[in-house]
Amino acid sequence: MSSYALGLDYGTNSVRALIVDTADGREVASAVFGYPSGVEGVILDDRDPNVARQHPKDYLDGFVATIRAVLAGSTVDPKDIVGLGVDTTGSSPLPVDAHNKPLALDLPQVIEFSSSDAARMTWLWKDHTSFAEAAEITDIADSLAMPYLAKCGGTYSSEWFWSKILHCARVAPEAFEAAHSWMEMADWIPAWVCGIRDPKLVKRGICAAGHKAMFHTEWGGLPSAEFLGQLDTRLEALRGRLYDEAHSSDQIAGYLSEEFAALTGLVVGTPVAVGAFDAHMGAVASGVKPGVLVKIIGTSTCDCMVHPLSENLPDIPGLCGIVPGSILPGMYGLEAGQSAVGDIFNWFVKELGHEGHEALNEKALELTPGSSGLLALDWNNGNRTILVDPRLSGLIVGFSLHSEAAEVYRALIEATAFGALTIIRRLEQYGVVVSEVVNCGGIAEKSALVMQIYADVCNKPMKISRSAQTCALGAAIFGSVVGGAHSTVSAAQVKMTGVKEQVFMPNQEAVEVYGRLYKLYMELHDAFGAVSNPSLGHVMKDLISIREAARA
Amino acid sequence: MSSYALGLDYGTNSVRALIVDTADGREVASAVFGYPSGVEGVILDDRDPNVARQHPKDYLDGFVATIRAVLAGSTVDPKDIVGLGVDTTGSSPLPVDAHNKPLALDLPQVIEFSSSDAARMTWLWKDHTSFAEAAEITDIADSLAMPYLAKCGGTYSSEWFWSKILHCARVAPEAFEAAHSWMEMADWIPAWVCGIRDPKLVKRGICAAGHKAMFHTEWGGLPSAEFLGQLDTRLEALRGRLYDEAHSSDQIAGYLSEEFAALTGLVVGTPVAVGAFDAHMGAVASGVKPGVLVKIIGTSTCDCMVHPLSENLPDIPGLCGIVPGSILPGMYGLEAGQSAVGDIFNWFVKELGHEGHEALNEKALELTPGSSGLLALDWNNGNRTILVDPRLSGLIVGFSLHSEAAEVYRALIEATAFGALTIIRRLEQYGVVVSEVVNCGGIAEKSALVMQIYADVCNKPMKISRSAQTCALGAAIFGSVVGGAHSTVSAAQVKMTGVKEQVFMPNQEAVEVYGRLYKLYMELHDAFGAVSNPSLGHVMKDLISIREAARA
Repeated sequence: MSSYALGLDYGTNSVRALIVDTADGREVASAVFGYPSGVEGVILDDRDPNVARQHPKDYLDGFVATIRAVLAGSTVDPKDIVGLGVDTTGSSPLPVDAHNKPLALDLPQVIEFSSSDAARMTWLWKDHTSFAEAAEITDIADSLAMPYLAKCGGTYSSEWFWSKILHCARVAPEAFEAAHSWMEMADWIPAWVCGIRDPKLVKRGICAAGHKAMFHTEWGGLPSAEFLGQLDTRLEALRGRLYDEAHSSDQIAGYLSEEFAALTGLVVGTPVAVGAFDAHMGAVASGVKPGVLVKIIGTSTCDCMVHPLSENLPDIPGLCGIVPGSILPGMYGLEAGQSAVGDIFNWFVKELGHEGHEALNEKALELTPGSSGLLALDWNNGNRTILVDPRLSGLIVGFSLHSEAAEVYRALIEATAFGALTIIRRLEQYGVVVSEVVNCGGIAEKSALVMQIYADVCNKPMKISRSAQTCALGAAIFGSVVGGAHSTVSAAQVKMTGVKEQVFMPNQEAVEVYGRLYKLYMELHDAFGAVSNPSLGHVMKDLISIREAARA
Repeated sequence: MSSYALGLDYGTNSVRALIVDTADGREVASAVFGYPSGVEGVILDDRDPNVARQHPKDYLDGFVATIRAVLAGSTVDPKDIVGLGVDTTGSSPLPVDAHNKPLALDLPQVIEFSSSDAARMTWLWKDHTSFAEAAEITDIADSLAMPYLAKCGGTYSSEWFWSKILHCARVAPEAFEAAHSWMEMADWIPAWVCGIRDPKLVKRGICAAGHKAMFHTEWGGLPSAEFLGQLDTRLEALRGRLYDEAHSSDQIAGYLSEEFAALTGLVVGTPVAVGAFDAHMGAVASGVKPGVLVKIIGTSTCDCMVHPLSENLPDIPGLCGIVPGSILPGMYGLEAGQSAVGDIFNWFVKELGHEGHEALNEKALELTPGSSGLLALDWNNGNRTILVDPRLSGLIVGFSLHSEAAEVYRALIEATAFGALTIIRRLEQYGVVVSEVVNCGGIAEKSALVMQIYADVCNKPMKISRSAQTCALGAAIFGSVVGGAHSTVSAAQVKMTGVKEQVFMPNQEAVEVYGRLYKLYMELHDAFGAVSNPSLGHVMKDLISIREAARA
């Protein structure tokens, strides 16, 4: 008898539901629901490009609509669905009242922007209004010699939990005062659909807590009241209403309520897994295990690895996070990332490319490594790993009077590959060996150009995750575990995940040229990233020599 | 009774004739003739982008055609034309036989490329086939501690006289052996139309000799036989058949021959001035005098100044040339230049701009200094002054995910302005004060955007030369002097030159922002130009701060 699991993947603009066969990972049916609020689900402010909010009602509408659609679109019997998993973007916190109800739940879903209403909504991961608070948190942690930042690369981000809440307290105190507690959307959605109406009973995921809220058992959970009080006495008070424990996603968050069973057609009491971030569940669905780096390549990247808790692991400077159990139970979860990858290619095509992706791609495929004489830094949106510095920018060097759009396009792809290699080298430098790389996301699926360049730059075979809906599959895997179809996440991975047959193998001639270019990339990286002060007088000449050799 | 002078301006693709009233510089009639040979007058080699040659017959055809046209197009009586001046591109040498006849004169004007024929033609200024010989000349001059390069910035160029001749001797020895002598086209054209058929009787211009052939009275004329012999014994032998004197263009090269009088309709015996390079005669027509910098802005720039011979002038590192009498008699002529200006804007529009010059220009005009956060190095074609290094390239830093084409376009214009300022500062650092800047050329005439940015970056008013045919006007001015209409070139300038009413004045707010940007430009300049090793870790952050301030 077949059993199925249901995965729900809450992205930036839409939510996807996926029914998966727990025996072999076969994807039976899927459905996508675009959030109705704001601009493609994101509530913006014309006056401030840093604002990005969401309406929590969209999540519930999407939960119901997508599950009804996948059930209607398949012959799966709801009683054969053993469990549900949920992943979301993050850190995307929202304020709730004492009954776990989001302050924004009753606001109209399509609204004109008003900052007091917006403060009551979900503060989407890419909301950057709290950049000053992020800097303040970093400064105070440094000045008090607190260990909190050691696990998240040394610098707190405006995209994260405490920055956002502190900013809310300052710019919208009435919204802050109305909030009894704050929830990551990854925690709130499973709890709400299970009918949990007391914030203290919500099972918080270790993934969000550990990577973004500075939660760690080493220092007794959340940052100390004393530390938070230094930031704002209101945060100190809030701390007591938050949480003392955090859980990995092989744990049950709750059981589907009568209300949501009736709305969706699922069976009452279906177990729901503790939520986690999309990239982490995507990593699981791509087969992450010790030695395997999973790169989720989209507008930006999220690079995930795991490392056994039993083996010693030092803090790794520049890594976004190292959290026990955040990806796989019993393992450190390691997260790194590049602030922009697909976003850089899209920017170039939109603003400077003359031609579309397809034409540029075709021409760029014809070029040999080094033949353009161009070299770029992939920092148009700052550098997340390893510099953790948003105040950086893109750079291109090597222009002649003949440099063509396709050459620049390829140089930008190469730059993101050099950025990827820099992350791998940092991991390996601290003892985390990368013996295998699995890529997923639209770019990995579609662009042979990108994958071949990554293979040549990193001098490693590039594999592609088998699923095109990796995050939703990951959520379903956790659903299968809480539903008892598999005893552990690793056991579920063996059955339910895999990579495509096509593997992009490094070409040794290209590897050699990229080795020369990477040395120059690192000199630019260290010079403009304020790491060191290399002499750069040879860079343009070396690029011309490399170009001449490539064209000869 | 009116008197007129005739100027002939031999450009890269065409020759222009201009009749000018010697009393007030009024431009009476002009005509242009496109060279029939090659591609727009330039003979190319598909297999080697460094090749650029011309057919000398084109010059004579153009001489006749344009003069006949201007005479036909005006009521000027040929007997009222008191003198002729000629300017040309350079260094553009051509091999001649013992009767001063170009080896290529009888070759077909439209030919398929053959390297032995091409070696017999004019080696156009932008022919770069002799890059290796240029490096060899620099090396040998350095190793023998010869002073020859001190007057041309310390580095010999592949665009210049000796490099080209040495390359010819090596790759086309039969053409080299067939040559009795070599002429700059600026020297050959006046001589030929005056019927001078003995190379030894050709009056060589000091402009070409001094700036490109390392001729200087300080070391007794051309470089020593010993030095040339070190390069190639055949050059040593050639030296004896070249020249021992060079003349400024207020001297008479000869008198129009019966043959060319009959062909053109001019009067036999009309005096013809010694020829010079286009930019230098253009500088004269723009009113160059001590304290006045003339910038001829085209695909590249030529920046000209003069300095009294009576005042001490040290060698200025990085300047293309310092030659007594090369621009104005009795003055040092100083030449600097940027390897690409208009060429950079054209490249951007062609390869990356999405839109044409006009649309980009309009949008760029709306932008405030610093608001793009972008900064560029204007080295897409290397750096002529002050680094004298062709193996450099263009660089752009400060890209975000929102950088727009018009912002990049403006950043490129600003980069050329920073390059212009760097030349001015180098001149002033060595005691050549720039109290006035006069611009000429198509970009100066047409682009208020470029001129305003130059004013703001250089913090100096930008004036525009009155004539739109500056080089031809300059040639006519020398024609007026050899024809006796004016006693000196300076006296002719007072009557015949002027600037437009519109002057672009610096805006102090912009000056301040550009002051901050220029500091960053110079750090990039010095780092990538191998001048010094500044720390660059603050550059991207400063650009972001400047951008934020500009947008606030």
